[in-house]
Amino acid sequence: MEVAAVAAGAHESPLAAVVLLVAVVLVAAKLGGELAVRLRQPAVLGELVIGVLLGNLHLLGWGALESARWDPALDLLAQLGVLILLFEIGLESTVGQMMKVGVTSLVVAVLGVAAPFGLGWLVGAWLLPDAGTYVHLFLGATLSATSVGITARVLKDVGRSDSDEARVILGAAVIDDVLGLVVLAVVTGAIAAADQGGSVSALGIGWIVLKAALFLFGSLAVGVTVSRRVFFFASKLRARGVLLALGLAFCFFLAWLSTAVGLAPIVGAFAAGLILEDVHYRDFTDRGEHGLDDLVRPISSFLAPIFFVLMGMRTDLRSFASAGVLGLAGALTLAALAGKQACGLGVRRGLDRLSIGIGMIPRGEVGLIFANIGLGLTLHGRRILDEATFSAVVMMVIVTTLVAPPALTWSLRRKRAC
Amino acid sequence: MEVAAVAAGAHESPLAAVVLLVAVVLVAAKLGGELAVRLRQPAVLGELVIGVLLGNLHLLGWGALESARWDPALDLLAQLGVLILLFEIGLESTVGQMMKVGVTSLVVAVLGVAAPFGLGWLVGAWLLPDAGTYVHLFLGATLSATSVGITARVLKDVGRSDSDEARVILGAAVIDDVLGLVVLAVVTGAIAAADQGGSVSALGIGWIVLKAALFLFGSLAVGVTVSRRVFFFASKLRARGVLLALGLAFCFFLAWLSTAVGLAPIVGAFAAGLILEDVHYRDFTDRGEHGLDDLVRPISSFLAPIFFVLMGMRTDLRSFASAGVLGLAGALTLAALAGKQACGLGVRRGLDRLSIGIGMIPRGEVGLIFANIGLGLTLHGRRILDEATFSAVVMMVIVTTLVAPPALTWSLRRKRAC
Repeated sequence: MEVAAVAAGAHESPLAAVVLLVAVVLVAAKLGGELAVRLRQPAVLGELVIGVLLGNLHLLGWGALESARWDPALDLLAQLGVLILLFEIGLESTVGQMMKVGVTSLVVAVLGVAAPFGLGWLVGAWLLPDAGTYVHLFLGATLSATSVGITARVLKDVGRSDSDEARVILGAAVIDDVLGLVVLAVVTGAIAAADQGGSVSALGIGWIVLKAALFLFGSLAVGVTVSRRVFFFASKLRARGVLLALGLAFCFFLAWLSTAVGLAPIVGAFAAGLILEDVHYRDFTDRGEHGLDDLVRPISSFLAPIFFVLMGMRTDLRSFASAGVLGLAGALTLAALAGKQACGLGVRRGLDRLSIGIGMIPRGEVGLIFANIGLGLTLHGRRILDEATFSAVVMMVIVTTLVAPPALTWSLRRKRAC
Repeated sequence: MEVAAVAAGAHESPLAAVVLLVAVVLVAAKLGGELAVRLRQPAVLGELVIGVLLGNLHLLGWGALESARWDPALDLLAQLGVLILLFEIGLESTVGQMMKVGVTSLVVAVLGVAAPFGLGWLVGAWLLPDAGTYVHLFLGATLSATSVGITARVLKDVGRSDSDEARVILGAAVIDDVLGLVVLAVVTGAIAAADQGGSVSALGIGWIVLKAALFLFGSLAVGVTVSRRVFFFASKLRARGVLLALGLAFCFFLAWLSTAVGLAPIVGAFAAGLILEDVHYRDFTDRGEHGLDDLVRPISSFLAPIFFVLMGMRTDLRSFASAGVLGLAGALTLAALAGKQACGLGVRRGLDRLSIGIGMIPRGEVGLIFANIGLGLTLHGRRILDEATFSAVVMMVIVTTLVAPPALTWSLRRKRAC
C-alpha cells in the first residue's frame, strides 16, 4: 500500500483512491445514461439521477462515497470537464451562425432569459425572505439559461431539426447561453462588490455588463483574426498532436482571461469554442488528421460525466425532508416551466409558439454550473446557496430536463398532425 | 477575481491558475516537441528539455513557475497522464504478441534488465556510499527498463520496423517493461518492509515477485475472459461513449487493484491495455464507432505531455553545480549505455547485435516514472531519491534518449550498407 501513497506524489489524496473513484463514477454514469436512453430520456438525466443515488447511499448506511462529494481531485476533474464541455458546445456553433439567426432568436432569447430570471427572483423573495436580495438574484440566474444539447437532441430524434421552429430555438438557445453568462457575471460581480463592503450602483452593474460584452465581442473579434494566423502557423509544425494541444491551450487561456476580467471561466471556454471554426484547422484535416471537435469529444466524454454525477452526488436527499426545501424546489420548477413560455410571445404568427416555449425549457448543464458556482460563492462569510437550496435547484434541473423531451415530442407531433 | 476562486469549488488551488498553468505547459510541450522533431529527435525529448528550461527560469530571476513544480493539480493531471499513456502502450501490444516473440526476446530482455540494474547498483554504492543499500537498489531499478515508444519510432522512421532485429527489440522491450515493473515492485516492497522496521529476507523478496507475477498473469488470465464478456454486453448498450468510459474505468480499476496488492498503479494500467484487444470491441467498431485506441489517444496526448514537462521542471539545474551530482549523472549514463549492450549477447549469430544493444538504450518515460516514485518514497523519514539524485536520473534519461536515435539510425544503415 506504500506505493499507492507514493505514486500520488505531492498530492494529498492518494492517486489509487482517486482512480478507483473515477472508475466507479464512469461506470455509474454510463449505467445511468443507458437507463435514461432506454426510457427515451437524455443521457445526462441518467447521470444526474445515478449521482443522486450514489451521493445518498449513506442514508442506507453505506457511507464509503460520502466524502467523495467534496473530494478535491474529483472536483478538479469535474471542473475541467465543464470547461471542455462548454468548449465543445462552442465548437459546434460558429460566430457566423450566431449573426445569421437574427432578430427573432434574439427577441426569443431575451424574453426567455428575462422572464425566468424575474420569476426565480420572486420565488426566492417569497420563500426565502431572510436570505437577502443577492440569494434571490442568484436563484433567478440559475433559472435563466436553456441547455442547448438536450433540445437539439430531441429535435433530431423527432426528425424536425431543419424546421423553422428548430432554427429559432437553436439560435435562441445559443444567444440565451451568452445572456445567461452575462447575467451570471453581473450577479457574481454584484455579490463580490457587496462582499467587499461596497454596494452595487446602477453604474457598477453597467460596468460589469460592459466588461462582459467587451470581453465576449473583443475576444471574438481579436480571436477570429489572430487564431486563424496562429493555427495556420501551427499547421506547418511536424510534432504530433499540435492541433489538440493548441486548441485546449486556447480554451484554457481564454478561461483564465475571462476570470481575470471578473467573469466565470466557462465564458472564456465557450468563446474559445465559438472562435475556432473548421477553417482554422483545415490545413490539418486536409492532410487526413482528425478535426478539433473529433479530438475534443473523447476528452469531454471522459470528464463531463464526472461533473454531472458529482452534481447529483452533492444533492442531499435529506434536505427534502423539510417541507420548505420541497416547496422551494416545486416553486422554482414551476417558475422555470412558466418563464420560458414567454419565448413564444417573441415570434411571428404561423410559427408553433408552444413548441418554441417547450423547447427552451430544459436547463441541464448550465443551471447546474451556475448552482455549483453559487455553492462556492460567499457573502460576508455565508454561502450564497446552502446545500438545501442547491438541492432544490438540482431538483428543478432534473424535472425540467425530464419534462421537456416528452412534452416537445408531443407538441411537435401535434403540429404536424394538424 | 472572486469568481475564479469560487469556480474552483472545494479545491484549494483556484481553477483559473490551474488552467493557465496547463495552457502554458501544453504550448511549451508542443514547441519543445517541434524543435526536437526538426532536429530529428523524438518529441518526448523536446518536452523534457523545455520542462527543464521552464522549471529553472527562476535562475534567470523569473520565478513565476517555481511553485508550479509541486502544484498538486498539475501533479494529479500528470499522474493520470502516465496511467493513460501506459494503458495506451498496453493497448498497442497484445497478450498473443507477447507469447509469440519467444525465447530470444525473453533472453534479451532478462540480460537487458539484469546488467543495467547491477551496474546502476554498483554506481550508487560507489558514488553514494552513505545513502544505503535501498537507494543503490532504487538507482539500479531506474536504469532497468527500455522505453518502447522511442525505439519503435526510430525503427519506423528508418523503414526497418519489419526486420528480425526490430521484432527482437520490440518483443524484448515489452517483456523488459514487465520485468522493470517487477523490479520496481520488489524494490519498493523491500523499502516499505524496511520502513516498517523489518528487514527483507529472501523469502520476502520471493513473496513480492510471486505477488507481482500472480497479479500480472492472474489479471491477464481472468481479464481476457471476463473483459470479453463485459465488452460484449456493453456493445448492446445504446448510450454514447460507453466503450471509452468502460475502457478507462477498467484501466483505473486495475491500477487501483495493483496498488492494493502492493504494486505501482502503472502495472495495472499497462495490464489493462494488454488485456483489451480489438476483438473486445469489434462490435463497436463494426458499427462505425472509433476503436478504443483512437479514443484514448487524444486523452493521452492531452495529459501525457504534462507529465514529461513536469518531470523536466523538477530537474534542478543548480544541483549540477555540485561535481558530485554531475559525476553521478555521468556514471549513471555510462552504466545505462553499457548495461544494455549485454542484450546483444542473448541473440544468435547473424542478427545485428550492436543494433539490438543500441535499440534498447533509450530509457524515456519508464525511467522517469520510476524516478518520480523514488522522489515520493521515504525510508525512516528520508526520501529515497533526493532532488539532486532525481536530477541526475533525469539527465541520464535525457542523454540516453538523445544518443539512441542517431546511433540506431547509423547502426542500422551500416548493417544495410554491408
